[in-house]
Amino acid sequence: MAIAPHIKEAMSGSSFIRKMFEDGIQLKKKFGEENVFDFSLGNPDLEPPEGVITAIKEEAAADVKGSHGYMPNPGYPETRAAIAKKISIEQNKQISGDNIVMSVGAAGALNSVFKAILSPGDEVIVPAPFFVEYRSYAANHGGKLIPVPTNDDFSLNINEIKKALSQKTAAVLINSPNNPTGKVYSDDDIIMLSDTLTAHGEACGRKPYLIADEPYRAIIYNDLHIAPVFQYYDDAIIVSSFAKDFSLPGERLGYIAVNPASSSAADVIAACGYATRVLGYVNAPAFFQRVIARCWDAKADYSSYVNRRNSLTAVLNKAGIPYAEPEGAFYLFCKVPERTVTEGEMTAGAFCDHLKKYNILGVPGAGFGKEGWFRLAYCVSEKTIVKSEAAFCKARKEW
Amino acid sequence: MAIAPHIKEAMSGSSFIRKMFEDGIQLKKKFGEENVFDFSLGNPDLEPPEGVITAIKEEAAADVKGSHGYMPNPGYPETRAAIAKKISIEQNKQISGDNIVMSVGAAGALNSVFKAILSPGDEVIVPAPFFVEYRSYAANHGGKLIPVPTNDDFSLNINEIKKALSQKTAAVLINSPNNPTGKVYSDDDIIMLSDTLTAHGEACGRKPYLIADEPYRAIIYNDLHIAPVFQYYDDAIIVSSFAKDFSLPGERLGYIAVNPASSSAADVIAACGYATRVLGYVNAPAFFQRVIARCWDAKADYSSYVNRRNSLTAVLNKAGIPYAEPEGAFYLFCKVPERTVTEGEMTAGAFCDHLKKYNILGVPGAGFGKEGWFRLAYCVSEKTIVKSEAAFCKARKEW
Repeated sequence: MAIAPHIKEAMSGSSFIRKMFEDGIQLKKKFGEENVFDFSLGNPDLEPPEGVITAIKEEAAADVKGSHGYMPNPGYPETRAAIAKKISIEQNKQISGDNIVMSVGAAGALNSVFKAILSPGDEVIVPAPFFVEYRSYAANHGGKLIPVPTNDDFSLNINEIKKALSQKTAAVLINSPNNPTGKVYSDDDIIMLSDTLTAHGEACGRKPYLIADEPYRAIIYNDLHIAPVFQYYDDAIIVSSFAKDFSLPGERLGYIAVNPASSSAADVIAACGYATRVLGYVNAPAFFQRVIARCWDAKADYSSYVNRRNSLTAVLNKAGIPYAEPEGAFYLFCKVPERTVTEGEMTAGAFCDHLKKYNILGVPGAGFGKEGWFRLAYCVSEKTIVKSEAAFCKARKEW
Repeated sequence: MAIAPHIKEAMSGSSFIRKMFEDGIQLKKKFGEENVFDFSLGNPDLEPPEGVITAIKEEAAADVKGSHGYMPNPGYPETRAAIAKKISIEQNKQISGDNIVMSVGAAGALNSVFKAILSPGDEVIVPAPFFVEYRSYAANHGGKLIPVPTNDDFSLNINEIKKALSQKTAAVLINSPNNPTGKVYSDDDIIMLSDTLTAHGEACGRKPYLIADEPYRAIIYNDLHIAPVFQYYDDAIIVSSFAKDFSLPGERLGYIAVNPASSSAADVIAACGYATRVLGYVNAPAFFQRVIARCWDAKADYSSYVNRRNSLTAVLNKAGIPYAEPEGAFYLFCKVPERTVTEGEMTAGAFCDHLKKYNILGVPGAGFGKEGWFRLAYCVSEKTIVKSEAAFCKARKEW
């Protein structure tokens, strides 16, 4: 037995996204960077904002004694204080550094939170479609992800959430702007959800946490805004990172913020710090904690994502591939078009395999909990998008 | 229910080390840095070698496009290749980058390995005393740590390991130089252990992995050397980091190396990459992967650890507190002395509480799986050690 059998099984059914990313590297080697349309991974191609680059250089040059050593597991006090300032602004509510735990990315944040709150058999409700990895994150800690359908426009379906709630529900996990749909949940929806969770908690004696995974909060279109969950629900936890808004996904810098209004805030913070330690993260990377303390409020320009969204939707319009108009993030969730030429499966897996023949890489929706759809990540150059038009049109025509 | 009950319980019985670290910060605020003798945490007080500091500055100044983005989960090819070179030298055996997975510290490395190889109920045998967190790391993935006694000089007791082996044994985990004893396992011991594991594998059909946790490999005294496990056992896995030898514990940069001679090497590497992803580490921090590719072979000077060991043992000799002479790392494992003045418990917990009254912080051995002993980490300034003499003598006299 080389590796654990359940891991062998999980790997074979595992995320297409990373496979695509690695296929993409191979295709690019073969056909040249220019000729591969790689929409597979949410790896921002924008460079980090200037303020971040400056902070990196300053921090390196400062060469502060002891700056690469351990700090308390939840992070440097000054970094936690900086994140608290950021959250205070976003939530329009005074938060202190004591309510923050720095984490190894938002993925590390979610794992620490799940480790802290889940008992074996506990459930985490998530509106589908959802980020592929949530299923693994819940399972890592004995929990089970319970996907529930959203409305046709991918907005929250409160009734479906209500039906899924039970004594086993430890948390409801939302992600707005959503990966893979780009949907932003309205304040009204969050208020309705909060009321539903409060009523459920009163009825059954176990009030679920509301976990808001917000790495795309800053990348938002049409003057929308992201509902401040701390305003609407006491037992709310925010997990996020600087991966997407500051284009730093490889640096693994994220955080957990617990609503100080929660009666269990101190316990959750302590348990998240503990979880961060015993899960082997130990602490968020020291260097980038120090960098972020310098530049958490750096200005970033997301206008190129708006342009890219417009370019890519224009391409798909031309090709005749339906999609949901994104309100934030940098993903376009597209519907597998009707077959017009050949017969065969109508799954997104089949369509994405078809696209690959035209050097287009997209990710089938099944992993996100939504069959018949696929995701295109448009955090790629404008040129790639424009150049992909012919490939998309040909692929559509020959489907 | 604020947090998961099993986590609440685990936290209350949790590592004294971190508690001490945080107590230390408080004591220093109260009495002044100068007057607290904090031997609690393995947080190297040496600065990183000059070559590392230069590499940090160079990498920051280079400001390479895309350098903060995602890379394949196992790490940058050039960083994996650099680590392979390092391992090839240490093991005197040619290793390629394909046999390396970069990790979030050695703690992240061990968690990825355990996730990859452990099925629920599997056991990991470890010679005691051992690093406190191993117990959590195994439990995170459904495994169970099985401590076995060592000989009086803390060398491996092969018979005890033999007795503990069973069909459930997934791995034997060794740590040389050892935390907390500073013991270095001899080549003969590793050869005997390898033969034992091979024989056990042949007899029961399940050959355990030999996992060598080697973050202290470079910090070694008396011209000793660390046995090259890849020479002696095919199914060997090395986990390590740059935390201790390069004084970078906060940066969370480690790695997994799998012996290419293992028939399951490719499977284990793939599973470790997968585990790194789904555990939410995703990848080792990008910036420090790039830094280490520049400076993995930087020269470091450990002579001050030798001096500190000599100073601290002189202090304890004077105070009359027995200890085991360390052969590597920067820990002194000490025996609780006989009480001569007051009556009461002879536990290391009681003695460490007693030491705290004299502003001395040490860690009781119970967490390391060895009652009646306690650990002093001497990665602190020479001055602190010298100044601690009066406090140790007084504490001993009044015990």
